[in-house]
Amino acid sequence: MTTGAGFGLAALDTRPPVRMGIIGVGRIGRMHADLLSREVPGATVTAVADALPETAARVAGDLGVPAVEIPELLASDQVDAVAICTSTPTHVDLIVAAAEAGKAILCEKPVSLDLTEVDRAIDAVEAAQVPFMVGFNRRFDPGHASVREAVRAGAIGELHTLRITSRDPAPPPPEYVAASGGIFLDMTIHDFDMARSIVGAEVVEVFARGAVRIDPRIGDAGDVDTAVTVLTHEDGTITYIDNSRQAVYGFDQRIEAFGSEGVAVSDNLPQHGGWTLTAPGRTEPRLPWFFLDRYLTSYRLEWSAFVDLVRDGGPSPVGTIDGRAPVAIGLAATRSLREGRPVAVSEIG
Amino acid sequence: MTTGAGFGLAALDTRPPVRMGIIGVGRIGRMHADLLSREVPGATVTAVADALPETAARVAGDLGVPAVEIPELLASDQVDAVAICTSTPTHVDLIVAAAEAGKAILCEKPVSLDLTEVDRAIDAVEAAQVPFMVGFNRRFDPGHASVREAVRAGAIGELHTLRITSRDPAPPPPEYVAASGGIFLDMTIHDFDMARSIVGAEVVEVFARGAVRIDPRIGDAGDVDTAVTVLTHEDGTITYIDNSRQAVYGFDQRIEAFGSEGVAVSDNLPQHGGWTLTAPGRTEPRLPWFFLDRYLTSYRLEWSAFVDLVRDGGPSPVGTIDGRAPVAIGLAATRSLREGRPVAVSEIG
Amino acid sequence: MTTGAGFGLAALDTRPPVRMGIIGVGRIGRMHADLLSREVPGATVTAVADALPETAARVAGDLGVPAVEIPELLASDQVDAVAICTSTPTHVDLIVAAAEAGKAILCEKPVSLDLTEVDRAIDAVEAAQVPFMVGFNRRFDPGHASVREAVRAGAIGELHTLRITSRDPAPPPPEYVAASGGIFLDMTIHDFDMARSIVGAEVVEVFARGAVRIDPRIGDAGDVDTAVTVLTHEDGTITYIDNSRQAVYGFDQRIEAFGSEGVAVSDNLPQHGGWTLTAPGRTEPRLPWFFLDRYLTSYRLEWSAFVDLVRDGGPSPVGTIDGRAPVAIGLAATRSLREGRPVAVSEIG
Amino acid sequence: MTTGAGFGLAALDTRPPVRMGIIGVGRIGRMHADLLSREVPGATVTAVADALPETAARVAGDLGVPAVEIPELLASDQVDAVAICTSTPTHVDLIVAAAEAGKAILCEKPVSLDLTEVDRAIDAVEAAQVPFMVGFNRRFDPGHASVREAVRAGAIGELHTLRITSRDPAPPPPEYVAASGGIFLDMTIHDFDMARSIVGAEVVEVFARGAVRIDPRIGDAGDVDTAVTVLTHEDGTITYIDNSRQAVYGFDQRIEAFGSEGVAVSDNLPQHGGWTLTAPGRTEPRLPWFFLDRYLTSYRLEWSAFVDLVRDGGPSPVGTIDGRAPVAIGLAATRSLREGRPVAVSEIG
Repeated sequence: MTTGAGFGLAALDTRPPVRMGIIGVGRIGRMHADLLSREVPGATVTAVADALPETAARVAGDLGVPAVEIPELLASDQVDAVAICTSTPTHVDLIVAAAEAGKAILCEKPVSLDLTEVDRAIDAVEAAQVPFMVGFNRRFDPGHASVREAVRAGAIGELHTLRITSRDPAPPPPEYVAASGGIFLDMTIHDFDMARSIVGAEVVEVFARGAVRIDPRIGDAGDVDTAVTVLTHEDGTITYIDNSRQAVYGFDQRIEAFGSEGVAVSDNLPQHGGWTLTAPGRTEPRLPWFFLDRYLTSYRLEWSAFVDLVRDGGPSPVGTIDGRAPVAIGLAATRSLREGRPVAVSEIG
Repeated sequence: MTTGAGFGLAALDTRPPVRMGIIGVGRIGRMHADLLSREVPGATVTAVADALPETAARVAGDLGVPAVEIPELLASDQVDAVAICTSTPTHVDLIVAAAEAGKAILCEKPVSLDLTEVDRAIDAVEAAQVPFMVGFNRRFDPGHASVREAVRAGAIGELHTLRITSRDPAPPPPEYVAASGGIFLDMTIHDFDMARSIVGAEVVEVFARGAVRIDPRIGDAGDVDTAVTVLTHEDGTITYIDNSRQAVYGFDQRIEAFGSEGVAVSDNLPQHGGWTLTAPGRTEPRLPWFFLDRYLTSYRLEWSAFVDLVRDGGPSPVGTIDGRAPVAIGLAATRSLREGRPVAVSEIG
Repeated sequence: MTTGAGFGLAALDTRPPVRMGIIGVGRIGRMHADLLSREVPGATVTAVADALPETAARVAGDLGVPAVEIPELLASDQVDAVAICTSTPTHVDLIVAAAEAGKAILCEKPVSLDLTEVDRAIDAVEAAQVPFMVGFNRRFDPGHASVREAVRAGAIGELHTLRITSRDPAPPPPEYVAASGGIFLDMTIHDFDMARSIVGAEVVEVFARGAVRIDPRIGDAGDVDTAVTVLTHEDGTITYIDNSRQAVYGFDQRIEAFGSEGVAVSDNLPQHGGWTLTAPGRTEPRLPWFFLDRYLTSYRLEWSAFVDLVRDGGPSPVGTIDGRAPVAIGLAATRSLREGRPVAVSEIG
Repeated sequence: MTTGAGFGLAALDTRPPVRMGIIGVGRIGRMHADLLSREVPGATVTAVADALPETAARVAGDLGVPAVEIPELLASDQVDAVAICTSTPTHVDLIVAAAEAGKAILCEKPVSLDLTEVDRAIDAVEAAQVPFMVGFNRRFDPGHASVREAVRAGAIGELHTLRITSRDPAPPPPEYVAASGGIFLDMTIHDFDMARSIVGAEVVEVFARGAVRIDPRIGDAGDVDTAVTVLTHEDGTITYIDNSRQAVYGFDQRIEAFGSEGVAVSDNLPQHGGWTLTAPGRTEPRLPWFFLDRYLTSYRLEWSAFVDLVRDGGPSPVGTIDGRAPVAIGLAATRSLREGRPVAVSEIG
């Protein structure tokens, strides 16, 4: 490294930081707490809460902030905004309570598996007029965002079809699957969000095919681990999605938008740039395995967008409608799989 | 993200952390201080010092540690190890003082532009038997390391030639150049280190060609901004290096080891995985520009190696000989450029 | 080039060549005639015939062979085998006549748009016991073949899903579309063949979605120009295919087989290996445009396989069942598109 | 394939073809004869000659043309132009004789290993004013040509350095090496030609380092099998070339031009576009092995350029100066290697 290599410090922002309370500091909440306390300019963590007091205490100790009960957190004047990172069935009650407490809210996906409940959350947010975001972090991934920008900017002309490949490196435990709402509401919901975001037109019909190819216990839990889904958007664009719970070569996350003037692609990158070429051929490393190795930047940018939303107001980049529509698509996909036919999203409500 | 995406917490290490004092918290020292305080398990920053008191005070305030004078830092029983990140002419005196104070040492490259001075530092380190590392971070880059591992493991057979391409995105200011010791001691020194590390044999002869193609003020300062260097190793391997102070497309850092059974390459990766393909062709993003976007992982792993060295002892991964040899090669390259002939490293001393 | 670059002459084959009569020397027939006369060891062209006498005369002149009437060609003792390259509606009568004349047959795809007719051709071939191949050349493409071999060899474990992307560089004229049988029988039929060939299990159900996005005259002709098709194979594997009549960046032909142990992909290669990287990013050439630039090797290997079949006997690499099944799938896809529901191939017959 | 896939026939050229006589139909001459008789529009082979009568007879029989003695060929009014594909020591006498006979000439590289002899050939060509080309086919490779075009068009700004990697898949027999004039005149000469062609400025100084790493018998023959060469052009551009007689992964042919606005690269492409990605990583096929798989297009385009030169006149794309300069550079490189110092091309003559 020399002076030429572009080392520079960001300009100073003198506004007070957004003070975050983290509700739920299990796996994903702990990650958000770490990110917010270290890597998000303009945000700071001031309290954590968790249903398990020991978990709350441990994380609070690591971060040097108090562990409190949830009602206390929501009532605190040291908390401007909350991250809701608890289990899905608790989301809506927490959104309603946080909205009534006047806190800005980022809620992990999905808001709920029940559209009536989603609507109750939306009503509370709209009544309280609090900033609200759903945790669809992948929208903020630079590669995925470049596809959306290419479509919006007309770089590939009129959009004809959209492909999303989304494969996890390893399946979750069967007990997780049983409570997850099924692959379409747990995993594909990210892809439904991405399809809406990139196409810019709502989904009107869903056809899904699925299979149990990886773990029979997933079938026993009433779910599939392999799925292909075809979405028809109201502007005629066709999105097709393939999912697997297990890609042994890493976290496979790709998008391809095809249009009248070309394709825009978000491709996988290998773990690093090393490779060899010998008589049998060329070998490269596999893909990143751990989701943070793939999506860390997206989480950072998600929180930056949230900080901007809280400070500057304006429309939410992932607002209430974005919390509701993917759930409806997921329910339609679930029904399509069961009934073996295309299902209109309007059938779902 | 679902449970399957491999979220896991590292096993807890209950040993007390290595307490670091940072000497020099300008650009590169500040980066090390930030890394050590946030991202290096097993390390913590306990004091900072800088020739400019205001700089020391500001960084100390950000990190929540005391700013002290250098002698005080070296005498502190709260400091186990020091990072020497000051300007090159101060390195040797600081190494000597730190060694005499019994501190473990990581010193930024180059140790000195003067081999006699380097030897004085080495003598002090060896007399005091303190852990010592030179800051050749690129050795720890996963892509570059994969090349070295391929060579060591015999994956490409017997090594014949090694190519290193090392281009900065933008040239340093002319006043920096004037004090830098020249391109070979400031910039190519990283590549000399890499060549020794990958080939595993010392360099015996150097031939360098250079030119001023980017900024005439660099020529006015007696230096070149473009260079091609050919190294002959004692085992007959030939390394060739090309350098430029300005690659407008980003930070271009590549290595290619060619041997009897194939090649091992460390290649550039683009800024992200997004691309488009339209009638005129395919377009990808340029390379990372900022050196931390390219080499952050290498700095993390460098500090992990240092923590291991301090805690566990053993041979240094980048020890005193690794501080001396690249300086000798750099001096030979400088002479070769001036005299227009190959120069034996043994001529230098 | 030096001696080391591996120049070698093939071993001589002293057997007499297979003498080919080409029936139909329009665009595709002319290409086959050229290939067979110049680039296929073991084959030679001895006669050509065409419904347009001037066309036959011109091609015959270029090749230095006689132009004859079709019955004469079929009766000739200078013709061992025929290539049927006429328009689709004439295929079956020609197959029957050639089989009755005892000639080996390669017939361009599709055999017919009518399954009853296909069966009539099959009956004639089986009665006469003549060697028979359908012109699904893409099976012989080295990239595509590498996917099939990876699946067969178990290199990617158990196959879960198969993706085929197949996009032409430019749409055919509307009058061609009107007579083509529709996109599924004209274009996707190659992909249906590939799906059967790679999966190794028959297709039992088809769901198709299509749209007119490129040329409204294609819609006026009762067809679509953009389609996504989902196939369910009898072993549970799911194939999904996307087609477009117009990829402005070239001939886009990709296959991806995903299984329990990884993916095998046949990817596009650019027109050549030149690229640039400048401040805005990296640019590569677009894809090959002309189908022969993409698939020339596949045609050569197809004819080699035919020569082997004629000389050595054994099962046909693309036999009668391979002529029938893709037509049935194409008819099912056509019905699925019209009726908006998945269609069992068994409904078709 | 459908109508959309761009099948088109070239416009007819009604001019009489250039009638070629091939002198020397061993390995490379046979290849040229095959190309000219089948794949080069505007050319036809009318006679062949070879020092070995049986070789001449066999090739003549395959092509359906007469085998004649060389003087007869040069005197024939059925021959407009000759391809000189004999061994290097015979080139100059044949060039002189062909020029005196008024034939257009394409001579394989190198014209001679002796500059005085090269000058004698040049004098004869200039006296006779016959069209003349040297067989530096790589200039016509589309990837390499794209680098030259990028440099000429200013797409990468001002050129600073040029890298050429040129590695054969397997070494020639030692007896070939002994007669070859050495690696610089036999193999690197292609790269010297490319450097002159891309940089557009003559080479003034050469520094070469070499080693025997592959086959000790190459050392016994007085040659090296591994070399790195640095060229200084009169405009200050630096070219560096690495050569190996044996790249076990295939025919490795790359060029990289680096300038003030970016890089232009001619990269290798794999044998085909198939690859797999499994838990250990990604694997691709190795590079093409046989030189015709890599450079066939360049030979076709070379002959097209020759046909244009013969028909249309104008300056030769690879003229007499291009036959002489690379020989001088090769002799300078040979001397540099022997004497261990940079050698000015002006020392050679």
